[in-house]
Amino acid sequence: MNSMLHNNDPYDNNFDLIAKSLKYAEKFRDKTFVIKFSGKVLSNVEMLESVLQDIILLKEKAGINAVVLHGASEQISKVMDELGLNSTFVDGLRVTDKNTLKIVIGVLHDINSKIVWRINQLGGRAIGFSGVSGNVFMAKKRNEELGFVGTISEVNTGIISLIIERGYIPVIFSIGSDGNGGSLNINADEGAGMLASALHADKLIIISDVLGLMKNLNDDGSLIREITFDGCAHLLEGETISGGMLPKIKGCMSAIEGGVGSAHIIGLKNHALLEEIFTDQGSGTMIIR
Amino acid sequence: MNSMLHNNDPYDNNFDLIAKSLKYAEKFRDKTFVIKFSGKVLSNVEMLESVLQDIILLKEKAGINAVVLHGASEQISKVMDELGLNSTFVDGLRVTDKNTLKIVIGVLHDINSKIVWRINQLGGRAIGFSGVSGNVFMAKKRNEELGFVGTISEVNTGIISLIIERGYIPVIFSIGSDGNGGSLNINADEGAGMLASALHADKLIIISDVLGLMKNLNDDGSLIREITFDGCAHLLEGETISGGMLPKIKGCMSAIEGGVGSAHIIGLKNHALLEEIFTDQGSGTMIIR
Amino acid sequence: MNSMLHNNDPYDNNFDLIAKSLKYAEKFRDKTFVIKFSGKVLSNVEMLESVLQDIILLKEKAGINAVVLHGASEQISKVMDELGLNSTFVDGLRVTDKNTLKIVIGVLHDINSKIVWRINQLGGRAIGFSGVSGNVFMAKKRNEELGFVGTISEVNTGIISLIIERGYIPVIFSIGSDGNGGSLNINADEGAGMLASALHADKLIIISDVLGLMKNLNDDGSLIREITFDGCAHLLEGETISGGMLPKIKGCMSAIEGGVGSAHIIGLKNHALLEEIFTDQGSGTMIIR
Amino acid sequence: MNSMLHNNDPYDNNFDLIAKSLKYAEKFRDKTFVIKFSGKVLSNVEMLESVLQDIILLKEKAGINAVVLHGASEQISKVMDELGLNSTFVDGLRVTDKNTLKIVIGVLHDINSKIVWRINQLGGRAIGFSGVSGNVFMAKKRNEELGFVGTISEVNTGIISLIIERGYIPVIFSIGSDGNGGSLNINADEGAGMLASALHADKLIIISDVLGLMKNLNDDGSLIREITFDGCAHLLEGETISGGMLPKIKGCMSAIEGGVGSAHIIGLKNHALLEEIFTDQGSGTMIIR
Amino acid sequence: MNSMLHNNDPYDNNFDLIAKSLKYAEKFRDKTFVIKFSGKVLSNVEMLESVLQDIILLKEKAGINAVVLHGASEQISKVMDELGLNSTFVDGLRVTDKNTLKIVIGVLHDINSKIVWRINQLGGRAIGFSGVSGNVFMAKKRNEELGFVGTISEVNTGIISLIIERGYIPVIFSIGSDGNGGSLNINADEGAGMLASALHADKLIIISDVLGLMKNLNDDGSLIREITFDGCAHLLEGETISGGMLPKIKGCMSAIEGGVGSAHIIGLKNHALLEEIFTDQGSGTMIIR
Amino acid sequence: MNSMLHNNDPYDNNFDLIAKSLKYAEKFRDKTFVIKFSGKVLSNVEMLESVLQDIILLKEKAGINAVVLHGASEQISKVMDELGLNSTFVDGLRVTDKNTLKIVIGVLHDINSKIVWRINQLGGRAIGFSGVSGNVFMAKKRNEELGFVGTISEVNTGIISLIIERGYIPVIFSIGSDGNGGSLNINADEGAGMLASALHADKLIIISDVLGLMKNLNDDGSLIREITFDGCAHLLEGETISGGMLPKIKGCMSAIEGGVGSAHIIGLKNHALLEEIFTDQGSGTMIIR
Repeated sequence: MNSMLHNNDPYDNNFDLIAKSLKYAEKFRDKTFVIKFSGKVLSNVEMLESVLQDIILLKEKAGINAVVLHGASEQISKVMDELGLNSTFVDGLRVTDKNTLKIVIGVLHDINSKIVWRINQLGGRAIGFSGVSGNVFMAKKRNEELGFVGTISEVNTGIISLIIERGYIPVIFSIGSDGNGGSLNINADEGAGMLASALHADKLIIISDVLGLMKNLNDDGSLIREITFDGCAHLLEGETISGGMLPKIKGCMSAIEGGVGSAHIIGLKNHALLEEIFTDQGSGTMIIR
Repeated sequence: MNSMLHNNDPYDNNFDLIAKSLKYAEKFRDKTFVIKFSGKVLSNVEMLESVLQDIILLKEKAGINAVVLHGASEQISKVMDELGLNSTFVDGLRVTDKNTLKIVIGVLHDINSKIVWRINQLGGRAIGFSGVSGNVFMAKKRNEELGFVGTISEVNTGIISLIIERGYIPVIFSIGSDGNGGSLNINADEGAGMLASALHADKLIIISDVLGLMKNLNDDGSLIREITFDGCAHLLEGETISGGMLPKIKGCMSAIEGGVGSAHIIGLKNHALLEEIFTDQGSGTMIIR
Repeated sequence: MNSMLHNNDPYDNNFDLIAKSLKYAEKFRDKTFVIKFSGKVLSNVEMLESVLQDIILLKEKAGINAVVLHGASEQISKVMDELGLNSTFVDGLRVTDKNTLKIVIGVLHDINSKIVWRINQLGGRAIGFSGVSGNVFMAKKRNEELGFVGTISEVNTGIISLIIERGYIPVIFSIGSDGNGGSLNINADEGAGMLASALHADKLIIISDVLGLMKNLNDDGSLIREITFDGCAHLLEGETISGGMLPKIKGCMSAIEGGVGSAHIIGLKNHALLEEIFTDQGSGTMIIR
Repeated sequence: MNSMLHNNDPYDNNFDLIAKSLKYAEKFRDKTFVIKFSGKVLSNVEMLESVLQDIILLKEKAGINAVVLHGASEQISKVMDELGLNSTFVDGLRVTDKNTLKIVIGVLHDINSKIVWRINQLGGRAIGFSGVSGNVFMAKKRNEELGFVGTISEVNTGIISLIIERGYIPVIFSIGSDGNGGSLNINADEGAGMLASALHADKLIIISDVLGLMKNLNDDGSLIREITFDGCAHLLEGETISGGMLPKIKGCMSAIEGGVGSAHIIGLKNHALLEEIFTDQGSGTMIIR
Repeated sequence: MNSMLHNNDPYDNNFDLIAKSLKYAEKFRDKTFVIKFSGKVLSNVEMLESVLQDIILLKEKAGINAVVLHGASEQISKVMDELGLNSTFVDGLRVTDKNTLKIVIGVLHDINSKIVWRINQLGGRAIGFSGVSGNVFMAKKRNEELGFVGTISEVNTGIISLIIERGYIPVIFSIGSDGNGGSLNINADEGAGMLASALHADKLIIISDVLGLMKNLNDDGSLIREITFDGCAHLLEGETISGGMLPKIKGCMSAIEGGVGSAHIIGLKNHALLEEIFTDQGSGTMIIR
Repeated sequence: MNSMLHNNDPYDNNFDLIAKSLKYAEKFRDKTFVIKFSGKVLSNVEMLESVLQDIILLKEKAGINAVVLHGASEQISKVMDELGLNSTFVDGLRVTDKNTLKIVIGVLHDINSKIVWRINQLGGRAIGFSGVSGNVFMAKKRNEELGFVGTISEVNTGIISLIIERGYIPVIFSIGSDGNGGSLNINADEGAGMLASALHADKLIIISDVLGLMKNLNDDGSLIREITFDGCAHLLEGETISGGMLPKIKGCMSAIEGGVGSAHIIGLKNHALLEEIFTDQGSGTMIIR
């Protein structure tokens, strides 16, 4: 009977996983996690479903206050195209004139509705709204060339707390208020980092289309499991970080700087969210102080 | 000194007005009023300011739970025009294809932000959001010809109550959810009537560009001060009601039918809101059971 | 339509009055006002009714904690006369022997009952009691010549707060306890000033038989609308104040000194109370720090 | 050692008394007792002190809600006399004209203040007030010949409960309101019986100048220890009850009829109150259903 | 990337286990489980540790109200032996005279202290006590031959609820009160079944020295994973159940009859408790309605 | 009638006793008393009944939190004897080997059950338990010669407070935990003193088989009514204290040192408890700071 006590036993691994799940669930109960989607997630139906199921599990079974933030870059370009309008980018940011801004908002609102509807259909309870509602994101124009594109100057979390207290998952689309009754296009990764800080979140989790932070994008084995804020700063100096990953790292670093426990970049793997949260090894890259 | 007791005395009128104000304020304290704007209000800066000041006074000084609903028809046509897109109407309703819907929402969001910002600037506290947030308005497509245009099938007031409880004025733009993750263009008068019912409001007040319900639009003296639900029904049969007034009357009638204490159509007069609420005579037309 | 926006418009005055009423009502909600009657009010049925109606409105509609204090000088002299007893005054104070004191109390109790009954009949809710109940007024004998006449040494508000908390208007007749089981005749204006201080009242309002503080009693135009504590002190030095007004001013000054927001002397005009409280100009004289 | 267990042992009597005191104290905790004084008590300083000490003990140590009611018949006659006015009685009731009433009230107020002062001085906490305050006693004129003399028609206990809740002993002087702003002279025994009923009191205790109800006033041994309501009714028919005892018995009977647990008539013996309440035998006469 | 979605993937098994753990943890939060130990567990140090760790995890991490009941049969025989006293059994029950009973209790108290101490040492919080404390178990003598041996007649859970509410794990040793100040030896399996019913427990879990209910004790493959109450009744009729398993099945059946959700018999496997509770397949035998 | 006021009057003694009872009852309401029994009490049925009745009266009628602690020395020796085992004592302490300890506990548990049962039968509400439950008594071995005999090192009152809060009388048998899962025999007088300190008790009362602390055991008149801590210390030095009284005095002194208001040693007199608590003179010896 003693053999049962050996820890290499597959049974024991299971019990360890159960025990870990219960311990992490207890640890994170009533904590806040900000989860940011890559636009890519939204166009992959199966993956979206896996992500939303995990979020509902976090909220309903583990008592974690999940807060979702998303953009819709791909979808905006498509609508612009259909309307015969050009999409122009400067330094990766969309040049946004007065009427383009309205299309941007219209598309974000559309995507937001779809996410909320899907969560509700899967058994969760979500409420979606604009980042302008309750002045969640206050922003300042970057420059005249970009038009109505802003950088975030202030985050207000009142309406989010309200919705969390009532047991709902807030789902926010990334748009900001210019403080004078107008709106500004903002970057969702930047927003996620600042939102996590403002909410005194325990974790920021950015879902990306790569496995995490990698030394070599073509080599899965080069995935960095854990890195410090200073490690990230060093990486950024080295200029080895490719374009799309840049705002993600900066978002994570601003979260860490703002007091968030840890920031995570994870990939489009099935149930990557659960793996990242409830196992010791995790799934992608964890950035810590 | 006895002469002071005569009621025709201008002093006495003042005291009567003070006493009436206090009595109505007491009567309406903690009650809910739904206030709907005509698009015209939004383009008249002075008038908008008078309306918003009154709403703030209702909220902050008289303890009335004001709920604001608005459309943006004029402004949408203007943006469509600027983008080189045609506005087509069937029976007074805008034909709305997939991408037009995004522009409709973008413009509504823009107008909403401006109203909320102005209330806050005038010393009030408002939070703006879409009629899709929290499924405030659930709607069904009217027909294929009109495209993404809906008629309201259900109203959910959870998020509105949440915002009221925290002391804010909810400002909602009139768009509805199709229950499958999509949105539908809806009529704001129809929405206001159903919203007032769902909130068990004491009053629905629709601000119009005419003084109220009039027998002869060219004769201010023909203003109907008070009319019953049945009186309205009789008027509708007589076909003497002009186009724009029709959805307003129907909105008011649906509110009355839904148990709202009284519905009011008032004009673009200065402080018409206060006059309608705090004096016996009122300013426009009051529709009662 | 622009003409409606001119502020000279009589309509606008009305709206201003409504707005002012709501603002003052909000400002004074849950605040305490001490209101002291002149004996003259009590003998003018119409005026008494106007005063009591205003007090009920303050309490029931504006949520102001009205506290009423009254004397009964005229009526006491009349009863003394009927009983064949002499009324003797020294420096305006009634010489009060042991048995005169019992008549003084008997008459005050009688007047008190009548005021309370009338408030209740007009729809208000009042409870009347002696200034000795709960040791509201503690007093010390002034001198042997005057007999049982006291000057107030201490005010206890416990029983008054009790009655206010239950939603009643306390109506107190001005008599004090000598701290040894006996009672002392006290001046109602003096009592009102000290009571307002002890209750941390927002306002003390003394209703007089003249319009307020006047430079020339025969010229209504000489009414002083507003005066500071120091201004009052200066007036008192000038000896231009007539006899009956003296204790009123002193009562007001002691209230101001005790931290009361403002003290008011108003006349026997119809609804003078409402005018004084809910309009910017007021009706009589306002004394401020 | 067994001898200690014999119940005739004087020690055992002590322990029995301790146990009884604790049991009765527990039984009566938070119950209400109405205690009525005979005028005679008030003129016997030592006896008054014994009564008040007992009342304070009841209130402060045993948690019993003591409510005190008193008249002042003797003292009123004395003041009338001093003022050169005649006291006229019809069937034992004082003929009371308009001004006599004021003297009656003045004297009651004086006696009330003295009782309250003495309780406070002995370490208790009391608040005194008129039976007209809060409409405790509502009365109807008996007949024109007696003038302002009433029989009680209604009892309101609101203000009494208020004072009890705050930990004070209410001390009420027996005067009633005529419902039209006037006052009426009422009998204190009658008032005590009706007050005990209205307060759902557990006990009514009337302190008299004889030991209790006696078959023969000259024979202390003829004291009736316990008698039922029907027994009392039988006694009244027999006409053996002397004048002063009559209203006391009627007061007790009305209390019993009104649901009071028991009514007691006790004499001017030292600590008669404690003896009546905390021993099985009691001190005077107990009237039960 | 699709390959990640296949459910045979070892990763997916992990996620499934995490999701199951969270779901079961949520389902059982604040529910009550009665856990009964076999005497064998107590003599196997490693196994005892595994069981106690699991119980602490249930309590502290999953919020389950674990209640522990135990006997000490083996250990009692050993002490009897050491004291030179004979252990006599009739139908598997220990013949218990007056002084044997004291030894039984002394040993149970000793074992109880050891369990409680070990739980506390492992980071849990437990309080141990006798089944006589608070009359948890009331019992009736079975017959004179057996002496002080009882069958349970009533269960009182007051003291257990008290201890649970304060966040402790109650650990009870199986002894009962005879209702006359004496104690009776009772069977722990019988006690566990009745205790689970009385506590409205969600689960009764009996830890045995075999894997569960087996068709053939020598064939692990013959383990019955799930069986109904009626299935058990059928088994009992068949007389295929060996001696020690009999009271366990009867205890489980009485729990099911008493409304407990499910009863479990599990073996001395490492972490068998967690496996039984947090996986779909479980570890031993589950008995359901 | 004046004669009634003389204080030598037997009546007055009664009233004094009533007043004292009420005053002490008020003073001790919600206070905690630790009461320790001598083994002798337990073998005298009549005396036990008198003690338990008094305790119930304290708890139910006077609101005192009585906590009972007891040993069972006599009864243990008897069982040892019956089992053919020797009782050996060193310095008055029982030499306790591993199995003797189990008998000690078994007997204490038996006596405990009997006391609890009798309290409940007499109308009180008690819960009995071991001093090891909730680690009430933590102890250290005295020396190897004595075996499992401990001196108390720490007292934990959590479970006692729990039971008091629910309105029960805790009845504890004096056994301690060695902090390693084992138990130790402890002295009940020592336990009572330390328990009273830990509970911040107002009184410790030790019931003995002599009247109290006496200068000459054969002379009841030599009873010391009141003595200070220092007085006790002096007595101990004098070596005039006989064996059994020694641990009692030490227990009392440790209580006083621990902040307990007063410690009492009283005899086996009927209702000695009530006499000690509710009279000024008391029954035995009171030890004060």
